[in-house]
This record gives sequence, C-alpha cells and structure tokens, in this order.
Amino acid sequence: MTDLHSSETGSVIVILGASGDLTARKLIPALFTLRANGYLGERCPVLGVARREKTDESFRNEMHDAVSRHARTGPPTREQWDEFSRRLFYRQQDLGDPDAYAGLRRELDRLASEFGNPRSRIAYMATAPSLFAPAVAAMSAAGMVPDRDSTDVLRVVFEKPFGHDLDSALELTRTLGRMLDEDQIYRIDHYLGKETVQNILLFRFGNAIFEPLLNRSHVDHVQITVAESQGMEGGRAGFYDRTGALRDVLQNHMLQLLCLVAMEPPALFEANHVRDEKLKVLEALRPGSTGSVATWARRGQYTAGSIDDHDVVGYRQEQRVDSGSNRETYVAMKVFVDNWRWAGVPFYLRTGKRLPERVTEIGIQFKHAPLNLFSTVECEGDLCDLVEARPNSLIFRIQPREAILLTFSTKRPGMQYQVHPVTMDFEYRTQFESGLPEAYERLLLDVLRADSTLFTRSDELEAAWRFVTPVLDAWKRDRTCPDFYQAGVWGPKSAASLLESEGRQWRTPKTAS
Amino acid sequence: MTDLHSSETGSVIVILGASGDLTARKLIPALFTLRANGYLGERCPVLGVARREKTDESFRNEMHDAVSRHARTGPPTREQWDEFSRRLFYRQQDLGDPDAYAGLRRELDRLASEFGNPRSRIAYMATAPSLFAPAVAAMSAAGMVPDRDSTDVLRVVFEKPFGHDLDSALELTRTLGRMLDEDQIYRIDHYLGKETVQNILLFRFGNAIFEPLLNRSHVDHVQITVAESQGMEGGRAGFYDRTGALRDVLQNHMLQLLCLVAMEPPALFEANHVRDEKLKVLEALRPGSTGSVATWARRGQYTAGSIDDHDVVGYRQEQRVDSGSNRETYVAMKVFVDNWRWAGVPFYLRTGKRLPERVTEIGIQFKHAPLNLFSTVECEGDLCDLVEARPNSLIFRIQPREAILLTFSTKRPGMQYQVHPVTMDFEYRTQFESGLPEAYERLLLDVLRADSTLFTRSDELEAAWRFVTPVLDAWKRDRTCPDFYQAGVWGPKSAASLLESEGRQWRTPKTAS
Repeated sequence: MTDLHSSETGSVIVILGASGDLTARKLIPALFTLRANGYLGERCPVLGVARREKTDESFRNEMHDAVSRHARTGPPTREQWDEFSRRLFYRQQDLGDPDAYAGLRRELDRLASEFGNPRSRIAYMATAPSLFAPAVAAMSAAGMVPDRDSTDVLRVVFEKPFGHDLDSALELTRTLGRMLDEDQIYRIDHYLGKETVQNILLFRFGNAIFEPLLNRSHVDHVQITVAESQGMEGGRAGFYDRTGALRDVLQNHMLQLLCLVAMEPPALFEANHVRDEKLKVLEALRPGSTGSVATWARRGQYTAGSIDDHDVVGYRQEQRVDSGSNRETYVAMKVFVDNWRWAGVPFYLRTGKRLPERVTEIGIQFKHAPLNLFSTVECEGDLCDLVEARPNSLIFRIQPREAILLTFSTKRPGMQYQVHPVTMDFEYRTQFESGLPEAYERLLLDVLRADSTLFTRSDELEAAWRFVTPVLDAWKRDRTCPDFYQAGVWGPKSAASLLESEGRQWRTPKTAS
Repeated sequence: MTDLHSSETGSVIVILGASGDLTARKLIPALFTLRANGYLGERCPVLGVARREKTDESFRNEMHDAVSRHARTGPPTREQWDEFSRRLFYRQQDLGDPDAYAGLRRELDRLASEFGNPRSRIAYMATAPSLFAPAVAAMSAAGMVPDRDSTDVLRVVFEKPFGHDLDSALELTRTLGRMLDEDQIYRIDHYLGKETVQNILLFRFGNAIFEPLLNRSHVDHVQITVAESQGMEGGRAGFYDRTGALRDVLQNHMLQLLCLVAMEPPALFEANHVRDEKLKVLEALRPGSTGSVATWARRGQYTAGSIDDHDVVGYRQEQRVDSGSNRETYVAMKVFVDNWRWAGVPFYLRTGKRLPERVTEIGIQFKHAPLNLFSTVECEGDLCDLVEARPNSLIFRIQPREAILLTFSTKRPGMQYQVHPVTMDFEYRTQFESGLPEAYERLLLDVLRADSTLFTRSDELEAAWRFVTPVLDAWKRDRTCPDFYQAGVWGPKSAASLLESEGRQWRTPKTAS
C-alpha cells in the first residue's frame, strides 16, 4: 500500500474535455471532496481544458453549481469553496489542434511554479475516445511526456471505451504504448472504485471461512447482474446505438466483477500482483457451451412497456436510435472459468436497460447439502409441497444499499424440525456512520498516489476483448432481431431459458430493506 | 419424524410429586399451552399425585394461579381454562408407600375409562431421585408396567439428577432396567428442548456451507459457556452444596451441547441414529492434558461481591451452606474430542454461579486466514497498533435472546484497505413473530408422540459420568480450597490462565442487542 498522503508532494491536474457531463457530475465534485477531507494537498491546482470560451471565473461559477448539486457532502461552505476554487482554472483550447499543446504546456508550467513546483502532472482524458491517441501524441510532441530517466512524472487517465473490439483495442494500446509506459496509463473503470466491489477482496481474503467454500466443490453457480431501469435518457442514445450492452457494461464492469469474485489470492496486495491474478481469470474464460454463440449468449432489446407505473417507449422508438436497430439493450451469457478452482461451475452474467430495478449484485449459490435430513410439508388449500432446505447463497450487493447477505436454513420455532430460510445481512449504511466515498474520489486519489491496483492493465483489456469479440462478430453477422422484452420485465424469455434448461433460475434481486 | 398428532390417540398423564416447583412453574403451564394450541388431545387427562391433602378443586385453583403466572401465552381465558381443567385431577398419596400404588392404578384405570380408553400412560417422576427406583418398583408391583407383548404403553419420564457419579448412575440404570425397557425411559434434559439447541443440528446439517468448516482444518477452538448470575436463591442451597457445578450443569447440559456441536451427521434424523452419534462424541472425550486433573480442570467458588449494583454474600455465607464448604460453584475445563474430525481442537467449557450475566452460548472460533494481506494501523494518542483481520467466529446464543451470530472482517469505508470486524446476526425474536415454545412443551409433546431424540439414553449418561467422575474424585481427595472469585466477575483467575497460557482467551458474551 502506498502512503495515504503521497499526494502531498503535489500534482498539477489537467482535465482534457472539461465541458462535459463527467467533469461536472463526477470529477470536480470528487476533487472538491478530496480537498475538503484533506486528501488533496495545497500544491494540486486543477486546470479544465475545453473548446468553449470561458474565463476562470465563469468556469468556477459553473463548477460551484456542479459541486453544490453533486458533491456527496452537500453544498460547500464559503471557506471550503474559496479554498478549492482558487486552485481551479480554465483554458480554452481546441483539443484536436496539435499546435495548441505548446500553450497548454506553458500554462501547466506556470501553474506548477505558482503552486510550489510539484513534480507530477496528471492528465485526465475526459474526451471522446477518438482524441485519446492524437491528444497524447500532441502532448508528447509538446514535451509534456517526461523521459524515463526524468524525476518528473506524468500519469494519463483514460475513460472508457478503450476500443470497440479486439483489433481497435490492440491498435489503441499499441499507439499509446509508443508514447507512454504502461505504468503511466490509468484506465478507469468506476465500478472498481465502489466500496462493495473493493470489499469483495477483503471479504474473501481477510476472512478464513469463506475462501474454503469458494470453489467447484461447494459452489453450484455464480450470477452477476447489472440491471438498469433507465433507457436512453441523458442523450447517450447515439453512442449507445453504436455500442450496446455487451461493450458498454459486460466487457468491462461485469468481467471485472467476475475477476474479483473468481481470482486466486495474490501473493501481495499490490497493483501488479492483483492484476496478474485478474488476468489469469480472464485468460481462463470459456464460452458456456461448445456450440454456436447462440447456445450460450443471448441478446435482447426492450419494447414499449412500463417502469414504476410510467409508460415508456421501446428502444427503436427512442430519439437518435435507428427505427430498425438490432442493437442489444440486454445480454445474458453463460461462461466458465476454466481453471483448477472453478472448472465446471457456470457463471451467468446479465445486464440490461429498462429492467424493473437498478441493481448490481453478485450472487454465489452454493450446492445443496449432501443429505436432505430435514424437510417441511407446506400446504396451501389442497396443495401440499415438500419444502426442503434451500441452497445457501452469498450475495454481494453493489448498488443500491451496499450490503453482503448470507442466506441459510434454520429451524422454524415449533414442534417439528421444519426448515425455514432466513437471511443474515451486513449493510454498509447501518454499520458505518460516515458516508461511503464516491468511486471517483477513491480512483482519483489512487492516481495521485500512483496506486494502479484498481485500474485495468492493457493485458487485462486485451483478454476481455478477446473473449467478447467473437460474440460481437456473430451478432453482427446475424441479421435476425434480438429477443424482444417488454420494458419493465427481467429480460427476454430466451435469457431465462439459458438457466432453466439446467434446472436453475435467475435470482430476483431484492433491494428493499 | 413421528406424526405431529400421534398424541390424539390419547394418554393418561400422571405427575408423581405434583406439589413441587417444577409442576407449578413448568409442567402444568406446558401441558396447558399444548392443549391450548391443539397439541394435547381430548383423551389426555392429567393426574397430579403428592403427599399433601388437596381436592381436585383446590389443586385446580393452585394450578390456575400457576398457569396465569407462568404460561408463556399469558393468563388463560375462561374457556381455555375450563377446557383444560376438567381433565385435571389430584390424588393424595405417599409416594414412598408401595402399598398405595394399587390405588393409583385403579385411579388411572378410572380416568382412562372416563376419557375414551387411551392406550398409553405417561408417568412423570417429579420426585426426589431417591424415589425413582422405589416408585417404579411399586408401579411394577401394582401391574402398571405393561408386558412387552402388550399393546398398552407406559413411558416414564425422569428429571435429573440421574445418579451423582458413575457408580450410582450405573446402579440406577441397572435397577430401572430390570423393570423398564430403554424405550420406556425418558431422561429429560430441558436444555435439549430449547429452540436454539435444536437448531444447532438443523443449522449444521440443513446447510451445505457450514459443515465443511466445522473440523480441525478450520476451527481453532470451541467455547461453551453456561453462566448464571444467580447464587443460591430458591432454596436449592442444600441440594447444591451436595452437588456442585460439575454435576449440576457440566455433566449433563454442557456435555449435551458439546455433543450437538461436535457430532457427525446421523444417517437418519431419528432418535437412535442421533443418539448413536452423540454417544460417539462422549466416548471420544479426553482430558485437555495428560497431566493431573488440575492441569485441565479448574474449580472456583464465589465470595462476597456485587451483581447489577447489588451486594451479595459469598457462597460460604449462604443459608444452608456449610461455612467451610469446598463445593465448586464454578468449573472450567479444557477437553478434546479425540476423533478424526476434531483431534487437537480444544473445547473449553465453563459454567458458574454469580457471574456477571445469565447467558448460555456456544462459540466456535475459526483459525486466522492463512495470509495476512490486509491490516490497519490504529492509533490512540501516541500509541499505534497494527490491527489485523480477526479470526471469524460463529456463535450460537441459547439464552437470552436466542440468536446465531457470525463475525467477520470487512473493509472500513474509505481510502485504504482497512479491516473492520462486523457481526451478522440472525435473532429469533426479530425473524419469527410467534413466540418460542417453552422447552417443556416440546419435550412433553415428544414423550406423548414417543420421540426420544431429545432425551438422554443410558449409554450416553454412562459415558458422561465416566468422563467427569475422575474429576469429582480428584476434587474429593483434594483438601485445598477451590479458587475463589468475587461474585460479579467472570470466574477465578485460574480459569483465565487455562486459555491464556495457550494464547487464547474467554469470550465476553455480549447479550445486549
């Protein structure tokens, strides 16, 4: 672990593409909260760069509104804002114009000398992906990428998407690799900044009793769900219609979650040890069947329906979506992690838009007890059922209401040995008084302190693309429609049959307390 | 499992020694509640027998007071009481006079013919243990014990103590065995009627995930605590001063708890299969060291002190206690269960009077995680400690506030991987709306339906006495005083050192929610 306050030596932080939503909703509020909580030092000025014309003053005013609305600690006090905003600056620049970067460099030099000459610079690429390579090339040409021998430091943070298939990802990695070393590259997956996600590793490897159970001897299967109730709000429809659920969520967030729950313990809890273990999981990924893609991966698209009693339109009726679009808004997939620990244990992944709830969870379902010593006869009217002990499950609920839940069978009080399923839970909000940090706070601090544990390494990225690209290709060739599902249900029937044919079923996540 | 309503064929129930505390506080309230809840049929009259002169009417009035005060469902309604009390009768009889039993037999025959000729009779021996053998002999002589070929049924229920050492227990078993078959004998240990105690078996064998952990590979040690805050209230001092904590609690209740937590899964969940497995545990019991008794068993006696801010006298100052008594009011013991599953895992047992709280629990402490990947630096003033993940523990809390608790390490929300211990719990009262049945309700119903799973078989009894008798003998020979402890602390220092010398310590049970 690196020192908590390594950021005290200071960094000049530059956000390229500072007029976007990400900057206002996430980056500036996170930097503000880090500063308010003492994690961001005095020698850390922040420079926003974008094409629009703004003064420092007008940028600060915009950001004051943004922080007031989005910082988790609520609107800033005047002192807090003064303290933060006098280190906040704006530069108007066309990021596509290579010649403009010499000026950027001078601006950063000026800020550095004004704020105690910090050695390190952090460039946050909040731009369109098409600008990743050109902007880094321009920075490099402007002398902003320090030599390997230099004591100066540059770290460049990239927001997804990192490519749109294997070839484009490899190409991007190669291009960036000619200008930056791997340890200068920070690919953000904000899921990895969430407390519950980080807790998966501590829960698994900080306790002695769970790890002996997390393997093929005891686990029946694993389910990972990333469900959204939203559709195409927020103007993302154009991007989404070129991207789809597989690229947007499964390839990155879900495979990362799968890595955390399936990986072997690292020898040390350090960035490259952890990422080595995650890579091994990605390299062991196999399709859930030896047949065609359709036998183990299902795609769906929502039609008009209703969410929370509001009528909503179908995907093809959304603005900026092609009315004949076959883009998937839902993916379900059965995969194997083909290693000594997990061979033969199915991992079922599903993600979709316009599902009944916004919920992300990992559910580990254990096998039945080997012997059924207890059972209960339950009757409703004339129909009686023999209720047997249900299999145990361990749930990591990542959002909302972060929690860990363990279900087990107990004796129903009374005169017989009747089984009754109960749930023990540990909920963050009830156990810890302080609020949970925002994912971006943690991740930005990690960039400042050069801890890349929670960032995706290029070989991980490549392995993830290598796994999903054949599915993308198969769907591109397939001219038939995705499996339609009505907005407000848990995906298409074909996704349910993926499990039901094996005697299993999707969990219905319960997020109410 | 036997049928829930097998009692519907009816039984005549006779309580021998019906003027005592047990009858008023436990037996009649339990029978009343069974009747009110439909578990006790219409053909089940109850006859109280004791030396004192009473009419049916005066006995019923006394029992109405008793039920009003002690039934868990509160005072009976008039209908409930009428329904119950017209099947309640009293007979005045000197239980020590063999000649009086012919009259008892006629009385029972009369009740049987009045209440639909039930086939079975249940005799509950709520008497002094010295009457067990003579009363059964007198019943036998009066023709109340049916032949083996008969379709009539007699079951005799015995309250502890069953002997005061191995020889006396063997003698009692032999004497009773000449008159009764083993399946006619029901030795009650009311601990086994408690919901949480019964749940230990369902929890262990109705879930797939705990059993793989309950063995020498994963468990560091087990602690069983039966703590009482009471001293010699309730007039038991004379009995207690001849008995002591080892005989009164450890030999029966605690060894039974140990059996339930340590036993192998039975092939079937039936009385003799379960008791066979418990017997195997008792037969595998070994002293915690190869040295003298003093190296693995400690005895204590309370001195004057304070409980809940009330001053209380020492044991030797209690009424009816010899002022030079060396009787133990506290025992702590280290034992092994020397079988394939548990070899080398210490089981620490402790029980005592005048401890800070009334609490019974079984605590299973697991080993440390094999590798310490995470740790936390915690500072108080100038002193900093490295806090590592603490070992997991699983607690069965049997009283008060019946619960199952699992402690584990989690990530403290924030910018580092700091470990923080939390507890998941499952508490009966919050999960189940209906109240928990009293132990005696369950056990009496089991006698009615001839299910002896929760009763101690003679070979279990013998094995338990065989283990504790050498300790009793050693203490009898030892003329030194027990280790004194002040009323209101967790026992003598010598009991703490039993664990501390091995780098362990007694849990401090937390019973507040």
